Amino acid sequence: MTPLHFADRLSDAVRRCGNAICLGIDPRWESLPRQFRAIAGEPTLAQVADAFAAFSIRVLELARGKVPVVKPQAAFFEGCGPDGMRALQTVLRTATEMGYQTILDAKRGDIASTATAYADAAFAGTPIGGKPLPVWNADSLTVNPYLGRDAIEPFIQTARASQRGLFILVRTSNPGAGMFQDLDVDGVPLYRHVGEAVAKWADESLGSCGYGDLGAVVGATHPTELAELRRLLPRVWFLVPGYGSQGGAAADVAPAFDSQGLGAVINSSRGLTFPYKPDDPAWESAITQAIDRMIADLANR
Amino acid sequence: MTPLHFADRLSDAVRRCGNAICLGIDPRWESLPRQFRAIAGEPTLAQVADAFAAFSIRVLELARGKVPVVKPQAAFFEGCGPDGMRALQTVLRTATEMGYQTILDAKRGDIASTATAYADAAFAGTPIGGKPLPVWNADSLTVNPYLGRDAIEPFIQTARASQRGLFILVRTSNPGAGMFQDLDVDGVPLYRHVGEAVAKWADESLGSCGYGDLGAVVGATHPTELAELRRLLPRVWFLVPGYGSQGGAAADVAPAFDSQGLGAVINSSRGLTFPYKPDDPAWESAITQAIDRMIADLANR
Repeated sequence: MTPLHFADRLSDAVRRCGNAICLGIDPRWESLPRQFRAIAGEPTLAQVADAFAAFSIRVLELARGKVPVVKPQAAFFEGCGPDGMRALQTVLRTATEMGYQTILDAKRGDIASTATAYADAAFAGTPIGGKPLPVWNADSLTVNPYLGRDAIEPFIQTARASQRGLFILVRTSNPGAGMFQDLDVDGVPLYRHVGEAVAKWADESLGSCGYGDLGAVVGATHPTELAELRRLLPRVWFLVPGYGSQGGAAADVAPAFDSQGLGAVINSSRGLTFPYKPDDPAWESAITQAIDRMIADLANR
Repeated sequence: MTPLHFADRLSDAVRRCGNAICLGIDPRWESLPRQFRAIAGEPTLAQVADAFAAFSIRVLELARGKVPVVKPQAAFFEGCGPDGMRALQTVLRTATEMGYQTILDAKRGDIASTATAYADAAFAGTPIGGKPLPVWNADSLTVNPYLGRDAIEPFIQTARASQRGLFILVRTSNPGAGMFQDLDVDGVPLYRHVGEAVAKWADESLGSCGYGDLGAVVGATHPTELAELRRLLPRVWFLVPGYGSQGGAAADVAPAFDSQGLGAVINSSRGLTFPYKPDDPAWESAITQAIDRMIADLANR
């Protein structure tokens, strides 16, 4: 029976695959293997969107059964307009059919009924005449906390009603993240205050794995802070970006895990999907090898 | 000749209309006038999206020449999936053709090349093979600052290269906004630190009107803070939500303006687009009257 809690489905997927990799899908036209760019003349956005979908699905096939979690980045699909959003829908549906847990990385955030509209779209669907019509139908969504309590609660309530999860931005992986996240508030940085709020919300919906359905985004590029947050937020799943091309190594992400190897999923996007030159005919084996290398690397952390 | 700075185009539009109203387009199925919901059986998302576009365009026609700025809320269009995003595109294009300045209210925020992807989509277009292919083609975009410096700079650079504008969230209008925005950092609330960063960025791209192309979102529901921010950020355009249905009155938004009546646009969404019961056949005149009332109300501030 499929567990009712997102946290438990995530735990099961990580246990089943024996690793905690999150495969980030950030398609870029210039980086696509040549076969997907074989279009006569200048491509239209609809053609680019089709290429993004076809490439992403091939990547999903290559990682199937090996990797537990997939995270499409909404920005690159939005870059192809409505056709790109249709490609995003196809990628999410295919990933779910293949048994992946999905994270829609859209970093949404707004207030009240607007937040509910985003959450409905992300999860069970937009209710029209009382019946929800599915849009993205993702297992979880990344959310920006800046707008505060009544901007996050509609996401929490909608996620809970449809047994989905959230990852709230706490400490991001970018070099300039500290500009506001590190500002000192009562002797501790802002991100710790956000983290503590996330911990409280996570406790409201704990799965039998011991984690809540509400997680946190915590970058691999700040290992000390990752360790500190792991200690302070023991029941919060971490989505950890920044491994690989952003500079984080296996040792850097090790503090994100509990003693059972649960509690964190480690994202790699370009490192897994584009570990080759666009004209390399052996791009598929390059992807497979990159996945195997990351599995081995994380196992030796 | 059309001014090269977004700030100047905004000033011109406000002067030309003689008011600083921003018409928020937040379509909701249940609130649409009956004629747009006349569909046999349960509507599909494609039909809802078509109804959103048709209704929004009718609203744009009713406000044409009277109101300078239009702000579609991406969440409600995203709620209809890819077809909804096509409707959003239609609404933005139509608004531009009718001479409105447009604000895409999507509260985007991400890092590095992902932020650039959102900004390209919002403004000049996604560069494929060097040529930008337009997606939303809005005059300006709302942006969330939580991710910090290298999350905002790609938006600033992309906006500047295409002569567009940004509105960065500083102090939002929702009751729970203070949860993080009011946290005390060195004796002043977090939102003031964000505001000061916005002021610095705005100064890098000043139009001849004296304002920068980079604005701030500051809620009407906190009049004291609005006055304080106006004083501290004298060259930053304010996008002011919270007037009308969220409780802000003309007196509350008065401090947002400079002595020439520039420097702020005051948003109203439901108050202007849904000032009637869905079955009211006189919905068009209700909209016209609501606009006229708001113009008069702001003039008497």
